[in-house]
Amino acid sequence: MRVGVLTGGGDCPGLNAVIRAAVRKGVQQYSYEFVGFRDGWRGPLEGDTVPLDIPAVRGTLPRGGTILGSSRTNPLKVDGGIRRIKENLAKEEVDALIAIGGEDTLGVAARLADEYGISCVGVPKTIDNDLSATDYTFGFDTAVNIATEAIDRLHTTAESHMRVLVVEVMGRHAGWIALHSGLAGGANAILIPEQRFDLDEVCKWVESRFKVRYAPIVVVAEGAMPKDGQMILKDESKDSFGHVRLSGVGEWLAKQIEARTGKEARTTVLGHVQRGGTPSAFDRWLATRFGLHAIEAVKDGDWGKMVALRGTDIVRVPLTEATAKLKTVSPEEYKEAGVFFG
Amino acid sequence: MRVGVLTGGGDCPGLNAVIRAAVRKGVQQYSYEFVGFRDGWRGPLEGDTVPLDIPAVRGTLPRGGTILGSSRTNPLKVDGGIRRIKENLAKEEVDALIAIGGEDTLGVAARLADEYGISCVGVPKTIDNDLSATDYTFGFDTAVNIATEAIDRLHTTAESHMRVLVVEVMGRHAGWIALHSGLAGGANAILIPEQRFDLDEVCKWVESRFKVRYAPIVVVAEGAMPKDGQMILKDESKDSFGHVRLSGVGEWLAKQIEARTGKEARTTVLGHVQRGGTPSAFDRWLATRFGLHAIEAVKDGDWGKMVALRGTDIVRVPLTEATAKLKTVSPEEYKEAGVFFG
Amino acid sequence: MRVGVLTGGGDCPGLNAVIRAAVRKGVQQYSYEFVGFRDGWRGPLEGDTVPLDIPAVRGTLPRGGTILGSSRTNPLKVDGGIRRIKENLAKEEVDALIAIGGEDTLGVAARLADEYGISCVGVPKTIDNDLSATDYTFGFDTAVNIATEAIDRLHTTAESHMRVLVVEVMGRHAGWIALHSGLAGGANAILIPEQRFDLDEVCKWVESRFKVRYAPIVVVAEGAMPKDGQMILKDESKDSFGHVRLSGVGEWLAKQIEARTGKEARTTVLGHVQRGGTPSAFDRWLATRFGLHAIEAVKDGDWGKMVALRGTDIVRVPLTEATAKLKTVSPEEYKEAGVFFG
Amino acid sequence: MRVGVLTGGGDCPGLNAVIRAAVRKGVQQYSYEFVGFRDGWRGPLEGDTVPLDIPAVRGTLPRGGTILGSSRTNPLKVDGGIRRIKENLAKEEVDALIAIGGEDTLGVAARLADEYGISCVGVPKTIDNDLSATDYTFGFDTAVNIATEAIDRLHTTAESHMRVLVVEVMGRHAGWIALHSGLAGGANAILIPEQRFDLDEVCKWVESRFKVRYAPIVVVAEGAMPKDGQMILKDESKDSFGHVRLSGVGEWLAKQIEARTGKEARTTVLGHVQRGGTPSAFDRWLATRFGLHAIEAVKDGDWGKMVALRGTDIVRVPLTEATAKLKTVSPEEYKEAGVFFG
Repeated sequence: MRVGVLTGGGDCPGLNAVIRAAVRKGVQQYSYEFVGFRDGWRGPLEGDTVPLDIPAVRGTLPRGGTILGSSRTNPLKVDGGIRRIKENLAKEEVDALIAIGGEDTLGVAARLADEYGISCVGVPKTIDNDLSATDYTFGFDTAVNIATEAIDRLHTTAESHMRVLVVEVMGRHAGWIALHSGLAGGANAILIPEQRFDLDEVCKWVESRFKVRYAPIVVVAEGAMPKDGQMILKDESKDSFGHVRLSGVGEWLAKQIEARTGKEARTTVLGHVQRGGTPSAFDRWLATRFGLHAIEAVKDGDWGKMVALRGTDIVRVPLTEATAKLKTVSPEEYKEAGVFFG
Repeated sequence: MRVGVLTGGGDCPGLNAVIRAAVRKGVQQYSYEFVGFRDGWRGPLEGDTVPLDIPAVRGTLPRGGTILGSSRTNPLKVDGGIRRIKENLAKEEVDALIAIGGEDTLGVAARLADEYGISCVGVPKTIDNDLSATDYTFGFDTAVNIATEAIDRLHTTAESHMRVLVVEVMGRHAGWIALHSGLAGGANAILIPEQRFDLDEVCKWVESRFKVRYAPIVVVAEGAMPKDGQMILKDESKDSFGHVRLSGVGEWLAKQIEARTGKEARTTVLGHVQRGGTPSAFDRWLATRFGLHAIEAVKDGDWGKMVALRGTDIVRVPLTEATAKLKTVSPEEYKEAGVFFG
Repeated sequence: MRVGVLTGGGDCPGLNAVIRAAVRKGVQQYSYEFVGFRDGWRGPLEGDTVPLDIPAVRGTLPRGGTILGSSRTNPLKVDGGIRRIKENLAKEEVDALIAIGGEDTLGVAARLADEYGISCVGVPKTIDNDLSATDYTFGFDTAVNIATEAIDRLHTTAESHMRVLVVEVMGRHAGWIALHSGLAGGANAILIPEQRFDLDEVCKWVESRFKVRYAPIVVVAEGAMPKDGQMILKDESKDSFGHVRLSGVGEWLAKQIEARTGKEARTTVLGHVQRGGTPSAFDRWLATRFGLHAIEAVKDGDWGKMVALRGTDIVRVPLTEATAKLKTVSPEEYKEAGVFFG
Repeated sequence: MRVGVLTGGGDCPGLNAVIRAAVRKGVQQYSYEFVGFRDGWRGPLEGDTVPLDIPAVRGTLPRGGTILGSSRTNPLKVDGGIRRIKENLAKEEVDALIAIGGEDTLGVAARLADEYGISCVGVPKTIDNDLSATDYTFGFDTAVNIATEAIDRLHTTAESHMRVLVVEVMGRHAGWIALHSGLAGGANAILIPEQRFDLDEVCKWVESRFKVRYAPIVVVAEGAMPKDGQMILKDESKDSFGHVRLSGVGEWLAKQIEARTGKEARTTVLGHVQRGGTPSAFDRWLATRFGLHAIEAVKDGDWGKMVALRGTDIVRVPLTEATAKLKTVSPEEYKEAGVFFG
């Protein structure tokens, strides 16, 4: 058995841990051979490969990023894309393909498996934690830890100067990073894409915090939007999956708060530091187990499936189901956090 | 409604987060009053209290330990213990008691609730993660992160000197910390209390690692024991719950490995650093949610119950059920990790 | 002897350590009394004080920010400012004043001591490390560690996507944080305010990095400027010392690099996280020693002096001398780093 | 010019940063060639080499340990050792040798340079910071940060249980790590090898801490000894430089404190975690500059010299002078810290 592996979409701490675990188990337990495809779907599309064996994955467990490279290439949008992938898989004598990625990468894998008979197994990856069918995705815990540590640091600056500090974290469509880091960091307001925020209410929370002689921290997901629909988003570009890149809500919010409350406000946009660097222990554990179970799925010939976390168990779910619906913060979960606002 | 709160057993990152969340929600949402009992069950036993309100819990979210103090006092072993607790609860006009603790502390709470009609709600706490009925307990993730970071550091020393490094982590009866930190840290052997280890096999793993010019890390839980039953444990003392304190397996193991393989071996005993200091983001989030849901249980008058994590949900389970059985690493989970040994 | 203490200017990890050490030594060794003035020079100007004794400073060593608050109030710009300060010091029966701050705060202290006979001792504080007369100021090491950790994280994202990552760090007039974190983080270009950069050269470095299949990290101080004098700075506001707030070089640079090299480029602005949170061990040690030696200066009646680090010794220098000249990165030091560019 | 590089003695965060900087500067600026010798003096003694060029050092800056390996081999104790080293250097066409190490490694380099005409340049390395002639050695700052973080964590456990926590840190002959981490961590007693401690006094400090309802942390260097000369050291082994390995003062001290004060006491021995893992920003900066300046010394043919830190400058000093005298904590520096005891 010869297994191809690729990683697609934005990088995420834990990708190397998945690859390493799959290779270790495949080689040692089942004597599989492996080949790495470079830069997501671009690899099988263009036949761009790297050798993948146990020496190649040594020492990669604590390293962020992906040794295979990544891209947002969508082969379904490329003329003859499917045919070229099939040819290159055949040329490399690949019997099974493990695709590690988010909604987009796995969506392609689902179609290749279901419509074109390619033996694909998926491993879910999204730093935003917004894939349904799995309790958590790796990378998310690392991002939340980094954001929480930043909020911890910002508290002392806020208190020293009695300023409002707005922290913009990742999360275009789902507020998981904002919700978890906001709760863990003791934020006085958490704003998420799932629920439009009311500027008056935010300002009320800000002011009530100052009344007890403390300074407020406002955590805002990059995709959060104000209630009155005021246009704050700059359309920068679209990728090949048609996703728009947004930016600017944190900066905008600080200015609005300053104008309305008369308090100094500053913004910190955490940006890329949230997705880089060494994975947390949880993410290394989860990614490692995903890699091990992906090999089990390959061994079982269980194509078109994705590994997923349910409680403390790793299970398999259909790729189509997994990518069908975005997992967002429910109104109940958001309301639960509300007791800490203000 | 006046709610008493106590924390019992070994300290654990996240205890303050539970207390803070309970007080915030109780005061703001339901206008409850709170009173803190000092040092676990010693507090209600001796009527030793501290004021507990919102200002008292401010700034405690990121702080390890417990602002209420802790002890291993077992009131069931004290003459007239139950009576004295009832009297002190009455004197303090306490309508409900939230007990935060492990098997021992919650075992007392279960009996007080079920046999003596005291309105108790439990919050599970064990750094060892060995309570059944909950997927995770807070403190565990912090301990695993600390142990993993230590293992990361020890790898470079092991490689530089081509030495065996034995890391002894917490876990008397359950190997969860060893299993998770060993997997996350890339250990070459993980030894847990659930399964007696074979010294010959450990030495074989050690030697196979040196063959590829790498140096091995052996992670051993403090309660792990060798197969041949050789007595390695020093009985130091017993606490009031009759638990024996053990020590020494790491040191002993390094000597055995050195003697059998001829390779230099060193031991690091992580000890108390695993349970102190600021909680990880996950533990702050979990502890906070436990605190919020404990108040909901109080509001519902759902006595004799414990909050627990199932997947991403907080549920309630009977205290008796929760403390009935130790949650240990299953043979399957241990075997899954075995692919990385050697 | 009754000693007043104030902290002025931007907050900085280590301020509390100075205060704590001064109070501990003053109270225990010399039986001094202390009083804290709130928010820098606003405190003595308006007679706004807080009690300051050993219990007040307990537990503050690891905490960032300042328990006394801070501001950029300049009493020399306030009508009758000096008179009001003298009156309030007399009212509080303050015999000596310890002013902890940067160029501005210490500049006021120097004039109060030299021209108005107020018994002032200074402790230097600047996260930018740009005060002459001291080898290092506390806060700087913490900021460099935070920036370095961020650069470590960004490397993996840059490699995974083969992108340019621009990291904007603090440093309006001096490039110390950029130089040290850039060297420590393995940056491929470091741009500082002391030397105007050449965009063509920066792009050459960027391209040469991609040629060896690695992705470049560009570290840029917020005050760095391009050679051709292109206006990139947004004048946001001026504080009472007349300092202009700048912003935007990182964002601008990424766009220029993208346009000129055709490579994707992203910016991360570290911002306030660099100055908040728990101080590094070095900063706690340095700040503690500054506090201890400030009390020695008070005991010696050595007014108009500032404590300073020379090698591993704490010495005293005249406040006027200390604040006369900005300490900037020399051309030799910058050239030394150049071997790593590209 | 062909330059040999070796690393000797205990591993230390920053070794790879020295090697990388030397290679980068040597290759790019002067077109030098490099060869690595394995495992300290064993490399040139046995002619055991590894290729050393820019690709070999890529990515090593943040990595602890040494890519060249290390050992405590003393070639002066080996029959014909000098002759064999000369032969192997000639065989490898090595024109200059950069020896990175502590007292022992540099002592050999000094004799090779001064007595046998071998073109040696030294780079000082000791995690204990006990080399005279340099303000700091790299690795020390990392060790102090790790020890301080551990002390931070132990405070919360000590407080929660009102226990004494004894932390044993590195330092056989010099108390620098104990002094700096003890000051930075807010220890209530710091015991160093330079000054025998009085158990009665230590117990007095411990008890005075409990009186204010806080729990004490005692930091003890592994080489600290009690006043009454009670034998506490276990002679484990001697290395080829005749150094005895000691152990046990922390454990012993906790038992003594428990027996004398009646308070529960626990010990944490930090051990090898202090010397492994990624270097702090300061150590990366210092090690990098040492590497750059070692190449300058090579270029100048300044044999028998060692690079050293003086204030913020890198200077050169004779190797003989540098290794002649141990740098220990002076009575004044120790006394300065005493204000925090108790």
